[in-house]
Amino acid sequence: MNSGINRDEFEPTAQRNCDSQMETELLCPKGFRNLLPETDTFIFDADGVLWLGDDVIPGAPQLLDFLVKNNKRVIVLTNNATKSRAQYARKLASLGFSSKLDKHLIVNPAAVVADTLYRAGLSKNGKKVYLIGAKGLNDEMDNLGIPYFGHGPQLEDDSDDSAIMYAIKLEEEPSKVGAVVVGYDRYFNYQKLMKAANYLQQRRCLFLATNEDETCPGPNPSIIIPDAGL
Amino acid sequence: MNSGINRDEFEPTAQRNCDSQMETELLCPKGFRNLLPETDTFIFDADGVLWLGDDVIPGAPQLLDFLVKNNKRVIVLTNNATKSRAQYARKLASLGFSSKLDKHLIVNPAAVVADTLYRAGLSKNGKKVYLIGAKGLNDEMDNLGIPYFGHGPQLEDDSDDSAIMYAIKLEEEPSKVGAVVVGYDRYFNYQKLMKAANYLQQRRCLFLATNEDETCPGPNPSIIIPDAGL
Repeated sequence: MNSGINRDEFEPTAQRNCDSQMETELLCPKGFRNLLPETDTFIFDADGVLWLGDDVIPGAPQLLDFLVKNNKRVIVLTNNATKSRAQYARKLASLGFSSKLDKHLIVNPAAVVADTLYRAGLSKNGKKVYLIGAKGLNDEMDNLGIPYFGHGPQLEDDSDDSAIMYAIKLEEEPSKVGAVVVGYDRYFNYQKLMKAANYLQQRRCLFLATNEDETCPGPNPSIIIPDAGL
Repeated sequence: MNSGINRDEFEPTAQRNCDSQMETELLCPKGFRNLLPETDTFIFDADGVLWLGDDVIPGAPQLLDFLVKNNKRVIVLTNNATKSRAQYARKLASLGFSSKLDKHLIVNPAAVVADTLYRAGLSKNGKKVYLIGAKGLNDEMDNLGIPYFGHGPQLEDDSDDSAIMYAIKLEEEPSKVGAVVVGYDRYFNYQKLMKAANYLQQRRCLFLATNEDETCPGPNPSIIIPDAGL
């Protein structure tokens, strides 16, 4: 959904694309006025739509505020799994968005993964989740009482090159691991890969990935930042 | 090639498979005697054929010795890139193989990669190789005077989660990197992945992988050891 609408009563600065027959039409003021009465829920992406890094996209807070005041349900949906919904709610508030946009109106992969694990019984079956991911995942798992391990830096293994192949330490007994979750993790390394592969040998061990993006967008488009999908 | 031949004049303990019409026939004593006069070169895999871990495969040193004494060229060919040919030659000697099996009769991916980089001019074009791999690669690169960096543990980056996305340190200017080599590396981590992806954005940066194996064989078949192809 395009939120880049002029803020003066949502009047256009130009009529470009308004009458075009594209498969997905850009929203023009006339189209928006037609859409408004018959639409209950508006869903917005976050990065690049509501903000770019720490900068708000001009007009976005005003548009969302207008929708909230007109009793529309506004949902923020992101594929970024590094932060929790609570962190996103704080970011929205700090950038001047409506205070009504609390964490229950935010959907992100960290929350979806935690919810999926909760529904699969991971909060009460005595098994742990092996977590390769960033802080946002921890917070969403904590919210639902799901036990996990593996987050953050991996302790350095000081065995020599050959020992690692012959005396592997798995940290947890595979039968105690009910799921492996993979997301963007700046501490990802060989030991984590090896543990994940071994836990996943069990037939009943779930495997969830937060997002398929090969790279994250960054401030410098010429620099590649590998994401969870690589 | 099957080297598991009975050592008493290579007579069989049983005739199984000798007359079968398999596409690839197991070598039986009669077949071996027919093969011998018309074959100049014998090529053997190493792990699981000449040795298993630190244990020699019974009869293998005697067979290779027999071939060497009969003026056959014997080549040891392995897909294991963690050791140099010099290390393999020492292992052969320590397990009782013919002292004539020196490093020039051993072919391994570390040597092939180093040779490929040498032929591509990496020893004299002022560029370096970014190396994700084990010690064997370093040694083969040293032999041919190819400059490299990146081997071994990666220094811990103490920036916070968001900083890593916005202030990436690439260690070397991409224009100074002429090739990226990837092999089994117990120190593989996110920083190495990120650097490799960024160096490889350059059109003229070569990309070589030592082997495509998804896992290494280990002493415990129920434990997965991820290899370079994963």
